[in-house]
Amino acid sequence: MKYRFYSIVIHFLLITLLWISSCLFAADDQTQELRVNAQRLEQRIEKLAQFGKTQEGGVNRVAFSDEDIRSRPFIISLMEEAGLKIRIDEAGNIIGRMEGTDPSLSPIAFGSHTDTVPHGGKYDGAAGVLSAVECVQVLSENEVKARHPLEVIVFTDEEGGLIGSKAIIGILTPQALDVTSHSGKTVREGIKSLGGNPEALDKAIRKKGDFTAFIEIHIEQGSTLASKGIDIGVVEGIVGINWWDVTIEGFANHAGTTPMDKRQDALLAAAHLIIAVNEVVTGVPGRQVGTVGRIRAEPGAPNVIPGKVVMSLELRDLSAKKIGSLFQGIVDRANGIAKKTGTKISFDPIEATAVPSPTDPTIQKIIAEAAEELGLGYLFMPSGAGHDAQNMAKIAPTGMIFIPSIDGISHSPKEFTPAEDIANGADVLLHTILKIDRRKF
Amino acid sequence: MKYRFYSIVIHFLLITLLWISSCLFAADDQTQELRVNAQRLEQRIEKLAQFGKTQEGGVNRVAFSDEDIRSRPFIISLMEEAGLKIRIDEAGNIIGRMEGTDPSLSPIAFGSHTDTVPHGGKYDGAAGVLSAVECVQVLSENEVKARHPLEVIVFTDEEGGLIGSKAIIGILTPQALDVTSHSGKTVREGIKSLGGNPEALDKAIRKKGDFTAFIEIHIEQGSTLASKGIDIGVVEGIVGINWWDVTIEGFANHAGTTPMDKRQDALLAAAHLIIAVNEVVTGVPGRQVGTVGRIRAEPGAPNVIPGKVVMSLELRDLSAKKIGSLFQGIVDRANGIAKKTGTKISFDPIEATAVPSPTDPTIQKIIAEAAEELGLGYLFMPSGAGHDAQNMAKIAPTGMIFIPSIDGISHSPKEFTPAEDIANGADVLLHTILKIDRRKF
Repeated sequence: MKYRFYSIVIHFLLITLLWISSCLFAADDQTQELRVNAQRLEQRIEKLAQFGKTQEGGVNRVAFSDEDIRSRPFIISLMEEAGLKIRIDEAGNIIGRMEGTDPSLSPIAFGSHTDTVPHGGKYDGAAGVLSAVECVQVLSENEVKARHPLEVIVFTDEEGGLIGSKAIIGILTPQALDVTSHSGKTVREGIKSLGGNPEALDKAIRKKGDFTAFIEIHIEQGSTLASKGIDIGVVEGIVGINWWDVTIEGFANHAGTTPMDKRQDALLAAAHLIIAVNEVVTGVPGRQVGTVGRIRAEPGAPNVIPGKVVMSLELRDLSAKKIGSLFQGIVDRANGIAKKTGTKISFDPIEATAVPSPTDPTIQKIIAEAAEELGLGYLFMPSGAGHDAQNMAKIAPTGMIFIPSIDGISHSPKEFTPAEDIANGADVLLHTILKIDRRKF
Repeated sequence: MKYRFYSIVIHFLLITLLWISSCLFAADDQTQELRVNAQRLEQRIEKLAQFGKTQEGGVNRVAFSDEDIRSRPFIISLMEEAGLKIRIDEAGNIIGRMEGTDPSLSPIAFGSHTDTVPHGGKYDGAAGVLSAVECVQVLSENEVKARHPLEVIVFTDEEGGLIGSKAIIGILTPQALDVTSHSGKTVREGIKSLGGNPEALDKAIRKKGDFTAFIEIHIEQGSTLASKGIDIGVVEGIVGINWWDVTIEGFANHAGTTPMDKRQDALLAAAHLIIAVNEVVTGVPGRQVGTVGRIRAEPGAPNVIPGKVVMSLELRDLSAKKIGSLFQGIVDRANGIAKKTGTKISFDPIEATAVPSPTDPTIQKIIAEAAEELGLGYLFMPSGAGHDAQNMAKIAPTGMIFIPSIDGISHSPKEFTPAEDIANGADVLLHTILKIDRRKF
């Protein structure tokens, strides 16, 4: 009797397990077929691009501008349609939340921004926000309930210095609030105009552990994916950025009366250094980049040998150590150039705008799996540009999904990503969310 | 009887010739010993430098400024003391004249300017004017009468574009009169403030043949004489100057997201071109110079790869043909650089500010002879800078005498030429004038 009782109990348990597991598989099967609505996504990108549309076919929707403010009810309406409950946090970030089945779990967050640079394009930021909304809409339409709460975040003023995500992780300084943004308003005034409260930014802060994960989808802004014909970039991290002001001091003199062999031409020395920067940066394997983007020669007259040149130097890489060794290589070359040209070359570091922000390796793997299962090609790569994800990585396991930028063009009316590529990225985001939702962190 | 008569006549003629020639030799012997008063010349340079004296020890006496206007009665008083009769021509040039013994001869003219660049030095221009006045003073003191009339010319606004000498040769345009000078006045207003009459500039014009010769003494403004320890530069001509605006078009792109091998960096191409200019110009023998003095990179942000660079190119040489061949060499190099860097490079010629102005070979020879006889070292050399002499060369056989500039510095409070060097130059000027006065042209 006793054994029979146990046998019944065990059978019951086994059947129950089988049922549960079959339900789960069924669920898996069901969700595995989910795809975003590519056409709807494309149409929404076009609709959003009407806010701040420019004659050149781009978008001028700088943060806090009338265009930015007018676009927000439209974005909010889409979020609500997807089933998200909206709040505006103290930093003006739009946060849409959908509760999960397990109230004990922290939310899975995903999002991007909708502000643009002056005279920018339709995709930078917008593609990420609308893909995030699309994922939630697809889940709602298919009555798929996530275990975790889901949060779509539309970050405030990304292009002005990642303002919204800085506020969320609690590093937005009072000085940053006083900066005048491209809208003409200070960031403080701008946040107010979005319905935020710059005097109570503490309330916008989210702590470590407040999120299960954060995922951002964004156009690559480089040509790597498009030129290689790869669908998805699995971002390994956001590169660190170091800036220096480089000063080259020679001797200003009369360009007519100073023989060639008697010159201490600061611009000639600068020319050698610009080439040296390029040679040092391309002289070792890797995806590091180095740029001289700004230059000023003094006194700056055609008939005076430049006595002084000030130029910028920027180095970016995922590894701070590599940035350090590249910089050392450049300094070594500069010393040789200074000796050869009779000039003095000095490097003044400017606020390092970003330390390298690696993304979470597990989330990288999940993104890659999702792409694989969707039959999409993918590539592990750094993000050369800054993103809100680099801030969110400080408080949450963070991942980033890149989609191709045709010809690598961004911050331009010519910025373009085909609808199919955006849908691919949104599908990867959707399945990444579902995979994370099923795992334990 | 007949033979005796002839013999007496012939003897008389011979004796007369002997007497005339001994008189001439005596005159020669007397003038050969003439030397300028080095101390007086030095003191006058210091006195003139009080007008517009700056804290850095330089002189700020831009044309038409209060300092320029206040200095003129002082200069005129020195000229009158030397025995010159003063007039101000319609262009504001001060012209001091001393009649010669032969009223049929055209004057020998010499002079320079007394205006300075903003925050210039004591010697540029001033050394030439005061040396010229000193020569006349020495002749007066020694009661040496020249056959030719002598004219000392103090040219109006040399630093603003050789204004006074342009007026004298009749090439000062109405547009040039409307230019605002460093004084804040237009050139037109400035000329009026010097006592000239900008509405009657025609009356200031001197024609070809109006001068027997023109000589200018000037500091070298380069380091050639000082570094070689040579006293006198015999100027072979004032170099031609050609300017171009060089435009390099690449592709502006995100400095973080654009891999090194995908860039069309206009500034990197510009750096190669700046070095190529230097290599082409120094790659052939001669005293030609080439300078890139002005550069602008667009958009000019540290985090954007420059899409466009505009820079100046200046070439100077005594031979227009050589300037042409150097330019062709630079264009050839530019084509290679454009191909290698994926950029487009174009050259737009800007108004050639000066065609080469050779000085008169006979006067060069006379200056060299005068230096030789004074026991001074001399060197035939081009003038890399522009001077009023280049205009005067259009209407008169013209010569220029250079004296050393210590360290080649000019247009600077640090500009310096030792008193002895100035006196050497003035002595060469004096004996050049005397030699010309004895010759027929």
